[in-house]
Amino acid sequence: MQAYHLDQFGDAARPVLRDCKTPAPGPHQVLVRVRARSLNYRDLLILKNRYPIPSVPGTIALSDGAGEVVALGEGVRRVALGDRVAGTYFQRWIDGRMTLELVSAQFGCTHDGMLAEYVLADEEALVKIPPHLSFAEAACLPCAAVTAWSALTGPRRVLAGETVLTIGTGGVALFALQFARIFGARVISLTSTEEKAELLRRLGAHDVVNYRTTPAWDAKVRELTEGRGADHVVETGGLDTLPKSVNAAGLDSQLSLVIAVTAIASPGDVLDPSVLAGRGTIRRIAVGSRTSFEEMNRAITLHGLRPVIDRTFGFLDALAAYDHFEARKHVGKVVIAD
Amino acid sequence: MQAYHLDQFGDAARPVLRDCKTPAPGPHQVLVRVRARSLNYRDLLILKNRYPIPSVPGTIALSDGAGEVVALGEGVRRVALGDRVAGTYFQRWIDGRMTLELVSAQFGCTHDGMLAEYVLADEEALVKIPPHLSFAEAACLPCAAVTAWSALTGPRRVLAGETVLTIGTGGVALFALQFARIFGARVISLTSTEEKAELLRRLGAHDVVNYRTTPAWDAKVRELTEGRGADHVVETGGLDTLPKSVNAAGLDSQLSLVIAVTAIASPGDVLDPSVLAGRGTIRRIAVGSRTSFEEMNRAITLHGLRPVIDRTFGFLDALAAYDHFEARKHVGKVVIAD
Amino acid sequence: MQAYHLDQFGDAARPVLRDCKTPAPGPHQVLVRVRARSLNYRDLLILKNRYPIPSVPGTIALSDGAGEVVALGEGVRRVALGDRVAGTYFQRWIDGRMTLELVSAQFGCTHDGMLAEYVLADEEALVKIPPHLSFAEAACLPCAAVTAWSALTGPRRVLAGETVLTIGTGGVALFALQFARIFGARVISLTSTEEKAELLRRLGAHDVVNYRTTPAWDAKVRELTEGRGADHVVETGGLDTLPKSVNAAGLDSQLSLVIAVTAIASPGDVLDPSVLAGRGTIRRIAVGSRTSFEEMNRAITLHGLRPVIDRTFGFLDALAAYDHFEARKHVGKVVIAD
Amino acid sequence: MQAYHLDQFGDAARPVLRDCKTPAPGPHQVLVRVRARSLNYRDLLILKNRYPIPSVPGTIALSDGAGEVVALGEGVRRVALGDRVAGTYFQRWIDGRMTLELVSAQFGCTHDGMLAEYVLADEEALVKIPPHLSFAEAACLPCAAVTAWSALTGPRRVLAGETVLTIGTGGVALFALQFARIFGARVISLTSTEEKAELLRRLGAHDVVNYRTTPAWDAKVRELTEGRGADHVVETGGLDTLPKSVNAAGLDSQLSLVIAVTAIASPGDVLDPSVLAGRGTIRRIAVGSRTSFEEMNRAITLHGLRPVIDRTFGFLDALAAYDHFEARKHVGKVVIAD
Repeated sequence: MQAYHLDQFGDAARPVLRDCKTPAPGPHQVLVRVRARSLNYRDLLILKNRYPIPSVPGTIALSDGAGEVVALGEGVRRVALGDRVAGTYFQRWIDGRMTLELVSAQFGCTHDGMLAEYVLADEEALVKIPPHLSFAEAACLPCAAVTAWSALTGPRRVLAGETVLTIGTGGVALFALQFARIFGARVISLTSTEEKAELLRRLGAHDVVNYRTTPAWDAKVRELTEGRGADHVVETGGLDTLPKSVNAAGLDSQLSLVIAVTAIASPGDVLDPSVLAGRGTIRRIAVGSRTSFEEMNRAITLHGLRPVIDRTFGFLDALAAYDHFEARKHVGKVVIAD
Repeated sequence: MQAYHLDQFGDAARPVLRDCKTPAPGPHQVLVRVRARSLNYRDLLILKNRYPIPSVPGTIALSDGAGEVVALGEGVRRVALGDRVAGTYFQRWIDGRMTLELVSAQFGCTHDGMLAEYVLADEEALVKIPPHLSFAEAACLPCAAVTAWSALTGPRRVLAGETVLTIGTGGVALFALQFARIFGARVISLTSTEEKAELLRRLGAHDVVNYRTTPAWDAKVRELTEGRGADHVVETGGLDTLPKSVNAAGLDSQLSLVIAVTAIASPGDVLDPSVLAGRGTIRRIAVGSRTSFEEMNRAITLHGLRPVIDRTFGFLDALAAYDHFEARKHVGKVVIAD
Repeated sequence: MQAYHLDQFGDAARPVLRDCKTPAPGPHQVLVRVRARSLNYRDLLILKNRYPIPSVPGTIALSDGAGEVVALGEGVRRVALGDRVAGTYFQRWIDGRMTLELVSAQFGCTHDGMLAEYVLADEEALVKIPPHLSFAEAACLPCAAVTAWSALTGPRRVLAGETVLTIGTGGVALFALQFARIFGARVISLTSTEEKAELLRRLGAHDVVNYRTTPAWDAKVRELTEGRGADHVVETGGLDTLPKSVNAAGLDSQLSLVIAVTAIASPGDVLDPSVLAGRGTIRRIAVGSRTSFEEMNRAITLHGLRPVIDRTFGFLDALAAYDHFEARKHVGKVVIAD
Repeated sequence: MQAYHLDQFGDAARPVLRDCKTPAPGPHQVLVRVRARSLNYRDLLILKNRYPIPSVPGTIALSDGAGEVVALGEGVRRVALGDRVAGTYFQRWIDGRMTLELVSAQFGCTHDGMLAEYVLADEEALVKIPPHLSFAEAACLPCAAVTAWSALTGPRRVLAGETVLTIGTGGVALFALQFARIFGARVISLTSTEEKAELLRRLGAHDVVNYRTTPAWDAKVRELTEGRGADHVVETGGLDTLPKSVNAAGLDSQLSLVIAVTAIASPGDVLDPSVLAGRGTIRRIAVGSRTSFEEMNRAITLHGLRPVIDRTFGFLDALAAYDHFEARKHVGKVVIAD
């Protein structure tokens, strides 16, 4: 089969397309014909050697993908031939508490990933995808959607009527907006252009604040919430937005911050001390468990939600997809389909 | 002023209309011109002397009411003249854990209640009502709506995509259906006629099961959930439905049962032992705290929800309202307005 | 090897000792030389065909055992040769929510169990045992100790200073007492003789109530808690004690009831309706996850806790152990060691 | 009566002793003869005008005090004449979620405090003190002990067997150590001298790390926990220790940071960006509710815990107590008794 391999690392590195052997499933393993994949910032971090978990040279790239089950190893009970499935970001984190052991096995990092014609997966590392979604849509879920779901469903789960603040129009932010709506929350979304504001309103944002024209957007969020501040912030902006997003969050609120954000920090970055002036909890999250993925899929199915896809590239144009994604101009998910 | 007093108790007892002095607010007290009230089963239990908390003879009846603030005692900070408010079911339970001390002060039971032209309330025992609701609609909230809200927002809060089972078309059941929808849940509702089924579907029930034509409705609920059973049951049917609702609930589910249900049991009632065959948690609830009421109002406001009112009686027809309510033919709330 | 098989079922059935092939570990499997086992009520229910999960005829008996790792299949990463391990009650429930799928694979029921010289286990179905425990002591943990741990550490976890009520001197009850003490709780323990009361006090019970001499023990518990009732009840007495234990539990309390209790009910049993007069939550539990087992072991190790062993039988006297256990005169755990 | 008033503010300001009228209790108010008080860092911040809540000039100083009820206003039900009581830090936060409204009324800040012969309190703002404690000991509880209790009992409550890291020998740190022990946790304590290490071990610390001789104490904590890091950090060191304490905390851990810590930051302070390299939740806390205080007292009573008092000054030596406290050489609490 053909697959893109992590053969080189560095700031400008890209995965390398070359032939390799199609794997055969051993006991409790499943062979999936991958039909679509999506890109996440972690995939760039891995190429740049800045991801917290070191990757194995030669590994096939990408964590996110969806496809069809085409071969079963001995003893497989969770899926059947022909099932439409996606891989889980963490191959071993089924449910419950996150541990180092559980998060250290990842597609496209320590194990061969989705940027291939086929992927070999442990049966525990697959979930069935919502029936109404195409493979391209389902390929958007494993990292970004589960992250957004985890942000809103932790120990301080969103309550209908609470206010959720989302930042920007990346994959996690748009899923957070969509999920916040089905949880019954009020959503305030930050963005930089009127065009993106349109999309955010169409997806259900109650208020959209343009951080270009309203640089004091933290004060604006407080004003929109009668001084209380947001109850939940899904912080996807990183170090730049953090001091203000912390200030936009209310007493007893929860700000969710992906653990990999520190990987995004560049050497020499300085943190504004006001980041500690906040009055809410800063919770670190890392995607989520397989059970979270399955619970999310149940909700996506019930509500007929569809991911926002920015653009879909062909398998042989995968490197163009990387370039487009790295240019950070996309809205929603960048997909590589067959 | 005129008010209906709990002067007599017994199976056929009704409150007695007579004149009494309009109270004047002391420090931290508020006088409210009551504009509408609603009836709850607890109001019948009090008259029949079967309510867990003994009531004080001569007390003005009814827990639920809404109106306007017309006079303020010294030091009041929570409300202002003209504010549109409702009373809290428990006058002292602000937030957090329920204790015996907190639940022992109740309008229409230990303290003068809402079936009067005016009510005197501690400022802590009032909440502002959603702006889009009429007084009649707001008067439906204190007992039934807060109970439904508490059922769905406890330690095992409803998650979008989970299944909620509601029973019948009483006040709590209809609120539970409405709230389950804004939480993003799938709702299965039980009822006895096609006409009521219509209403339930209009309010958002995904499936309606007629327990007359489908006596094995517990099996039907399991079938509708692919064998898993409901994740949440708001049990408002009492001892008759409990064995089946327990069986309709899934592993690790939560069934909410109001504490007063035992008051509803008649001497000689026998409990089917299968009530313990369930695999989920049976949680006892009792209305809820003021904070729950306020959180609920925030969600009701955001979503523009409106209570279902069965029928509205005039203040001088209050006894007819009791008769209508006791006949148990209503759908939604029975209101006594001015 | 020699092993006791579930060859016959019925009220007087016992497992049958016969030779069988020593299994060899496949990928991710581990061979354990079992050194000790313990009996649980579920093992009798399985023999009597009254356990919720049907067992496979010919299966080797017993869920609980501890021993040494003597052979590793390919790819095993969780344990090493020579590790001292115990099996998990549910072979697939790692962490998080219990599901039917997760609880349907059990040693001594659907899979060959511990009443053998060797047991073959998936590496995920083993935990390392506390270093200070003998194999006999560690063999007491998988079912009874994890059940007690789960009872006290659920969504309403015991808080230091709260009151825990334990019932009797069976395995679960004694572990619950020991764990409640390390959680800082006050413990009230029920028993029937002064001799057992002595043991309970030695294990740390603050108050012991003799239910023979104090038949109104529910009232006594309320009196000992200044009218409030116990905050937690670990209900191991079944239908006989349930109405009183429910009444001994306070407002907003939690009573934990193992799901299999219904299996214990005999045909014709009747339930006292007062079981619903309680004001607390009745939570159904079923042993617990592997993560709970590991968290418990960490605490057992820190505190140097040791299980109470009633009596230890030799491997060839296993049937005598069953008889002794079924006579229900034991205090603590009945062990079958080598 | 005599009382110390907040008449002047500034870096070197001290409260001023002068006569004032002994207050008389109005409805639901209570007069307490204060017998002992303790100092907290917030009392210095208030004098320096750096506390988040502005104080009212002329207010009597100090949040923490204990004494005897000597007069009751009309309608008081929570306490009786002669009761031994302490004030709650927040006069209106009874239970549940913290809100701005609830935390804005504080003794020694917005209301007359404890550095007086008498204090007037709303009956809701008092709790009964543990019977085994002296007034001096009980006066140590309202701020520091409740803060430590809240740190360990939030949404991620300490579980027996988990590791808690405490920093230093201030009031909050010592209470956190004592409470962590009754919760069954393993405790690692940081300090700077062998003499203090002795005290920490006597109070139950399993490991003491000297941050002077072990500057890489974060690595040491990870080593002591086999690489996992602490499960809970009670961060009382402020900006200096935060980067390392964050690094000493494990995946899915919780670090509790009092909200007022930002007040402690001086202009020009810079935050090490590695503060975001942590993998756990940073939770902001602010003392706690009255219910937390009462639950804590129940546990303190059951376990016979006693606060560590550094030194007790007489009422007329109160300013010397401030000087001693500000010199930051104390271990445990600094008390001003009669």
